[in-house]
Amino acid sequence: MKDFPGTPGTFTGLVLRVSQCLLAAGSIASMVTAACFFRYTAFCYLIASMGLQVFWSFALAWLDSYALVKKKIIHNPILVGLFVIGDWVTATLSLAAAASSAGIAVLFYQEDLGVCHNDCPKYQMSISLAFMSWVTIKTSALIMLWILFTGNLIH
Amino acid sequence: MKDFPGTPGTFTGLVLRVSQCLLAAGSIASMVTAACFFRYTAFCYLIASMGLQVFWSFALAWLDSYALVKKKIIHNPILVGLFVIGDWVTATLSLAAAASSAGIAVLFYQEDLGVCHNDCPKYQMSISLAFMSWVTIKTSALIMLWILFTGNLIH
Repeated sequence: MKDFPGTPGTFTGLVLRVSQCLLAAGSIASMVTAACFFRYTAFCYLIASMGLQVFWSFALAWLDSYALVKKKIIHNPILVGLFVIGDWVTATLSLAAAASSAGIAVLFYQEDLGVCHNDCPKYQMSISLAFMSWVTIKTSALIMLWILFTGNLIH
Repeated sequence: MKDFPGTPGTFTGLVLRVSQCLLAAGSIASMVTAACFFRYTAFCYLIASMGLQVFWSFALAWLDSYALVKKKIIHNPILVGLFVIGDWVTATLSLAAAASSAGIAVLFYQEDLGVCHNDCPKYQMSISLAFMSWVTIKTSALIMLWILFTGNLIH
């Protein structure tokens, strides 16, 4: 079960990490092109959270590529423990950031607050990408937890 | 490991379920006493999500009490599978609801939107209780996933 799809060091694992990275980067890009995003704490928090995810997923994509090229199995308990903690922290932060930004975006849509209405589609795109990014990181987090709990590790 | 703290049918499991139920009920109570909560989608969503959690946690608390009184072990694969799905769905919805409401509450605090400012402490109390409730349901969800993945089940 060492090469179960999505586990570290597999091609599907690499695809998951790269998609997390791209979706989070897309979310940041869409948010920063909006003119007034910095006025809203939730949107700044979304950028910070997606920034953390880009950094984390990029590091793990790099590690996956290294493991694939060198044909190494990187399922040792310390590494998998670190992956689990990192994935769960980033997944929780991403969901919270996406949900809080979505709350604000829905408020903008419902009530005429008279600010930044031209930016609303950019906010919506950014939030959608953040939710998609959360789905991919959550998938990774569940796979990591499964490896840790079932003991598919090299001691 | 059948009586690991927090597993279904244990006293700690029952305490977790009852605290989920009470925190979610407290969150709803605090929100509905605010005069204008119904104007904001995120707050209505918080009430719906906390309502679902009260219902779910109450049902599981009842099941835990039954198992404790009758001294039955309720770790069969179908039941634990159901608990995992229910716990993960309610935990995700609770976090999303608490985060989106928190986004709105922070916006109210920062910008003078001229509406319902007397209600802000009630919103904040409701959101804090919702976050605490999420911590307890997430704990239950992790324990359930651990039972499912490690195969501590009766077939």
